[in-house]
Formats: sequence, structure tokens, C-alpha cells
Amino acid sequence: MFGQAISASNQDVLPRVNGERLHTHLQALAEFGKMPGGGCNRVAFSQADLDGREFVVDLMRTAGLDVRVDTAGNIIGRRAGSAPGLPPIMSGSHTDSVPTGGNFDGALGSLAAIEVAQTLTEQGLTTQHPIEVVVFQNEEGGKTGSRAMIGKITEQDLAQTTHSGKTIREGIEFIGGDPSRLEEAVRVVGDVAAFIELHIEQGAVLENAGITIGVVEGIVGIKRWKVTVEGAANHAGTTPMDARHDALLTAARFVELVNRVVTTEPGTHVGTVGQIEAFPGAPNVVPGRVELSLEIRDLSMAKVDRLFEAINNSSVSLGTENGTTVTSEQYYESEGAPTDESISSTIDESADALGLTHMRMPSGAGHDAQSLAQIAPIGMVFIPSEGGISHSPLEYSKHDDVVAGANVLLGAVLKLDGSL
Amino acid sequence: MFGQAISASNQDVLPRVNGERLHTHLQALAEFGKMPGGGCNRVAFSQADLDGREFVVDLMRTAGLDVRVDTAGNIIGRRAGSAPGLPPIMSGSHTDSVPTGGNFDGALGSLAAIEVAQTLTEQGLTTQHPIEVVVFQNEEGGKTGSRAMIGKITEQDLAQTTHSGKTIREGIEFIGGDPSRLEEAVRVVGDVAAFIELHIEQGAVLENAGITIGVVEGIVGIKRWKVTVEGAANHAGTTPMDARHDALLTAARFVELVNRVVTTEPGTHVGTVGQIEAFPGAPNVVPGRVELSLEIRDLSMAKVDRLFEAINNSSVSLGTENGTTVTSEQYYESEGAPTDESISSTIDESADALGLTHMRMPSGAGHDAQSLAQIAPIGMVFIPSEGGISHSPLEYSKHDDVVAGANVLLGAVLKLDGSL
Repeated sequence: MFGQAISASNQDVLPRVNGERLHTHLQALAEFGKMPGGGCNRVAFSQADLDGREFVVDLMRTAGLDVRVDTAGNIIGRRAGSAPGLPPIMSGSHTDSVPTGGNFDGALGSLAAIEVAQTLTEQGLTTQHPIEVVVFQNEEGGKTGSRAMIGKITEQDLAQTTHSGKTIREGIEFIGGDPSRLEEAVRVVGDVAAFIELHIEQGAVLENAGITIGVVEGIVGIKRWKVTVEGAANHAGTTPMDARHDALLTAARFVELVNRVVTTEPGTHVGTVGQIEAFPGAPNVVPGRVELSLEIRDLSMAKVDRLFEAINNSSVSLGTENGTTVTSEQYYESEGAPTDESISSTIDESADALGLTHMRMPSGAGHDAQSLAQIAPIGMVFIPSEGGISHSPLEYSKHDDVVAGANVLLGAVLKLDGSL
Repeated sequence: MFGQAISASNQDVLPRVNGERLHTHLQALAEFGKMPGGGCNRVAFSQADLDGREFVVDLMRTAGLDVRVDTAGNIIGRRAGSAPGLPPIMSGSHTDSVPTGGNFDGALGSLAAIEVAQTLTEQGLTTQHPIEVVVFQNEEGGKTGSRAMIGKITEQDLAQTTHSGKTIREGIEFIGGDPSRLEEAVRVVGDVAAFIELHIEQGAVLENAGITIGVVEGIVGIKRWKVTVEGAANHAGTTPMDARHDALLTAARFVELVNRVVTTEPGTHVGTVGQIEAFPGAPNVVPGRVELSLEIRDLSMAKVDRLFEAINNSSVSLGTENGTTVTSEQYYESEGAPTDESISSTIDESADALGLTHMRMPSGAGHDAQSLAQIAPIGMVFIPSEGGISHSPLEYSKHDDVVAGANVLLGAVLKLDGSL
């Protein structure tokens, strides 16, 4: 059967991954940085991270991939295609974790991409495009590897200290890259036919909807503002209620306002006030100033802006009654990354061919695919996270969902190989 | 005129203090601990405090008082009365300040009491009761002097470190007291005929009402609670609005609830949320827990409790909508101290006799009079604080108001001498 060309439109011949083997690989990777209470600490550039990467390199070789580490420290396993000159279809994720992380975030997308390659090899299937399986370095510390692949790493990034204690520059050297030759790792438009990433949802939308596959419409854009309410600090004993300029009362109304504006508008956007501080912050002093954070996320930056304007316009009059003022200053922006509609349709078809329920949804969290979107069409496949929990030792996805996600990935890769 | 008995009911013969002299004394005391930018730092047991006290002792002697420092470190200047065996009418305040204080808080009541005594001496007036002018030590650090006078200082109090760097025990020795013989400073019921204290309002009620004299109905009682809202911390990107258990949204509604309950009920009570903290406190995490302070003050502890119950009962259902809970735990209580109605009426009469506008009002702040209330009938006279500001170098009361307050004090002392 070696070299057999397959027809992606014929679902009977669509191959399936080896679910048990994928399960075993997930368990084995979980040993690197395993914590006594469960979950793992495999922060980028730690010894556990390095050991986990060596394990992954072995898996790639066993899967029949040609493995190299690029100058940015990303692990790339390549499988040749049959048609000359075509750019690769790329799939992968990351194997580093947050300091008290789980065993699925990143690990799933990395090991499933290897499993896809191994399935192709075992079944003697050759794609027209080369297949590249990528394990990006340091996703949790700022998507360093994927950003290096699109040429977006600065000297400032390299100097940053990570959870491992090493700077990113030292970390890249530690894992076998060369921070002085990062340009050699860069891909540009045309270099990658498509990038497709399988990931756990990290939310509870799929679980609550009882749906197995999330087809990601895009990775949301984010804006953050520092909101300041100015009033007048006063003695809480000697200042009558009607003489107060209580900044916290206005801040409370602002929190309510954000919730009202965000929940009134239909859509999947979110708005969050996660930080609040009252000054001077004593039980016997009427707060004279309150600082809050405001974050809005949506696939459309225009909608993010529109929601902020609605909040901001209403907030101007919020303090009129008690003589306080509300001002906002934007301090952070992350552009959203839409996925490619034809890739998303292909994922839909792959799920349909497998008889799996699926739905379109945004990704509220950032992913390596977000970087790749700047040079290639991207797609993402989500599977349910139990209880919506991630970045926690409690992070868990069911075995059947893991296998379903990997099979959808395999089907989508094969279908894309035929359509791109 | 020496020894002349005066009739307090005849306003024509009511003496007046020397306003210019009082003004000069206030300015002179302000030199001790004077700060470059204005105001003073004359924290208890500092060298500036000690120097200021020596200045005050000289003023007392010049006013014809017999001066001693009791074992608690309070300065007591006594003027004999004409009737044998009567307990003294006592007046005074404190000369210590907060670290960045003003020149009226405490200083006014201390120097005005001395001025009253000097006026009596100069005009050859003898009261039936002895007059005692008291300058209590360390009012700002916990009313140590006045609490010692009622026998309420513990070993724990003595071990406490003050802003001066000294413990209270060391501080009492530093200013000439003897912490091992505090019992000798104690007065009990019957030892003091009345205590009357002139003080700046430290709020803006008088200023806003355009009234010169506040006749204090009592020093408010205080209760404080730690309020905890429990929700669930979640990723702000992946948790849809309708799946959130946002503790800060509920906390915001709690702040609004406190304001609504407190402002709906008629009266001079106040309710304050001065502290708030959201956990984990990141812009990209839905707050899972929020901690707030709640403080309620009123003359009536029963009303404090009733207001709290109203807030607490409503807060139970506050988080029903988004699956959060609100609980409160009391951690502080300061009993209120009512003033004596006959003393307050006497202050009213004294103000009327001087043609001064006056109103009844609570004291939202604590004062030495609060301690004395446990062993004697007390009264308090307030004069306006410009802008309601105190505990600040900007603290200021107009010269005319200062003189008015001192004359009301003088008149009240004389009237009380006739009526008690």
C-alpha cells in the first residue's frame, strides 16, 4: 500500500488514528514535570521541558519524520510529499506548560499531530504536500516559538526572564536553538500551505452544548484599559452620606455598567473587570480614587471598540450624581486572528465524515495558530475541557474526545491535501 | 473683683476670652513639630510633643493653674473652687498630632480650656467647683491618656509601639509619667462633675449649614465587618458571560446595596465600604473571590445593628443570579458615647447668650470625651472645619469661629458651675 493516493471525499477509506497509542503518549509525556498532587510543571526551558522535548523527538522519529530543531528552538518533524515544490501542511502545538498546569493544553495538539503522521506512515499513505509537525517552544511564556517563526521576536523579548529562571535567549540556547540566527527560522507568506492546530477548548462551551468538536472561527482580539475613578477621600465618620464623593460607589456602578453593556449586545464577546483597588483603602476612609482593569475580547476588533465606546460614553455620566469622574486609558492590544473559512469548512466535513457533532466558536484564549495566521491560512479544532478547567492540574479531556479530535485533524489534513 | 460670684443667667456679665491671645497661643504651639510645607508632626512621645507639652505647662502656670503631670502622663492644671468638697469641672483635649497633622485638632480644645482658666483668673472670677484643665497624652495613637484616666490601659496597650518609635510604656516615662503606677491616675464615677471638650468638627456639616457651633449629641458607635463574596475564578477569554460566577459583579452590587440601605433610612448614620480586593486580581481572570470592608456608625448601636441586618438580609440573595455567595464577619466594635443632655442644653444656652447659631449633631470621629463618658457626664462643642478637612496640614478653622468656640466653652463652664 506504500505510496497509495487516497481520496478524501470517500469516507470509507478515511484512515483512523491509533487512539490507544495517543493515550499512552499523553500519559508518558505527563511524566515529565509531573507534580506530586497531579498535573505538571513543565515550564519552558526547564529540565522537564527539555526532557519532554527529547521524548517528543523520539516519537517523531518513530513516526517516520525527519526531525530538526530550528534556530528558534522549535522542533520540526517533516514528512515528504509526493508533488514537487508544494509548501507543507503544518500541524502542531506546544509541550511547555504553565507552572501548575495540566496534561492536555498543548500536549494534545503536539502528540495528535505526531499520531496523524505515524498513522499516515503505518498505512503507507503519501500526501501531495509535505507534512510538518511542529512543537513550538515557550507558548505559555508569550508564544515565543511561533512568533519567532513569523519573525516577531525582538531583543527585548530575548532579554525577558522566564519561569525557568533563564532569559528567553538562554532558554533558546538550552533547548538547542541559536538566538543569534533567528532569521533562519522565519517563514513568510507562501512558505506554509496551511496550519491546523488541535487544542482543548479551555472553556465549557462544548461541554455545556454537548458537542464534541469546536471549529474555531478565529482567535479573539483583546484590548485592555486602566479605568480610574476620581472622587475625594474623606473621613468615614465625619462625612455625611450626601457630602461624599465616593469613588468606590461609582466604580461599583462601572462594574455593573460593563456587565449590562456586554450582556445586552448579542454575540460571543466578553467583557471583564478582573482588578480593582480603592485608595487609600482603609475601612474608615471614603475611597477617593479607585483603579480598575477593563478587558474586552471579540473576533472583531471593531466590535471591541464599539462595546468600549458604549461603556465609555455611559461612564462619563456615571459619577455626575456624586461628583466623581471616570476616565479610561488603553494599555494593551492583541489583534484577533480569523481562521480561514475553507479550512474551517474542511474541519466541518471531517467531523461530519466521522459522525461527530460540531459547532463554530471563537477561541477566547491565544494560541500558536494566532502567530501563524500572519503568514498562512489557519484552522483550529477544539475538543471539550471537562468543567471548562485548564491551566490547572484538574485539566481533563475524555479519551473519546481526544481520539475524536485527532481523527478530525487527520481527516482535515488529508482533505486539505486534496483541496489546497 | 477677686472672688466675685457671677450669675451665669445674666448674659451681660458673661465674660469673654481674649481671642487674640488664644490665636497667638495656637500659632506658638504650631511651631512645635512644624513641617516645611505647613501643618505639624507632633506625634505622641516625640521630642516635638515633649517640647509642646512644656510650652503648655508654662501657659497653664501663667493662667494661674496648679500644674502636675499624672502618672499616666496627662497634664492637669487645677484652679480651686469656692465650695468645699465639690468635684472638678474638667475641660481639655490633646496636643499630640497625627504624623502629617494640622494645627487645630486637639490644640484648640487644649488651649481654649487654658484660655478659659486665664480669663477667669484675670477677671477675678471664682467658680464653686474646681476647674481642671487636662491635656491628655497620645489621643491620636488610641486615646491612651484619657483611657488611662478611666483605668482602661492594659499591659498589651503599654507594649504597643507608637509613631515615635517608643512603646507606650516608654512614651509615658518620656513625658514624665510612671507606667508602673497608672492606678494613681484613675478617676471613678463621682470624681469629675462634668467633662466638656471643644474640638474642630473634622467634617463639613457646620460649614455646609452655615452654622458656627455644633452641640454634640454623642460620639458615634462603630462596627466593622469583613465581607467575602465567593464565586469561581475563570479564564476571562474562554468563559462566556452567562457561565460566569463573577464575585466582583456581586461585590459591586453589594457596594450599591450598602449605599441604598444607608441613604434610604433617615438619620445621620453613615455606612462605608473603604476596602476592596479581587482575587486572583488579574485583568484576564474573572474574579473568584472579593473581600470588602463594611463600616457602619451611628449614635445608637441598635440602629447600627438594624442597618447591618437590612444589608445582610438583602445581600443573601444578591449572588443568586450568578451563583455567588456573600458572607459577613464582624471584627471591630467601638461603643458609642452619648453626651449628657443637660450639658448639651447648657451649651445651647451659652451659644444663644453669645448670639451664635448652633445645631445638634453627632461626632463621627472618636475623642477623649468618649473615655470620660464612662465616669462622668460629658459635653462637646464643635466649630467648623474649612472644607471638612482634618488630619492634614490643610486643616483650618476661622479665627472668629475659634474665638466663638472658646467663648461658648467659657459660658458653658460657668453655667454648669451654677447648675451642677
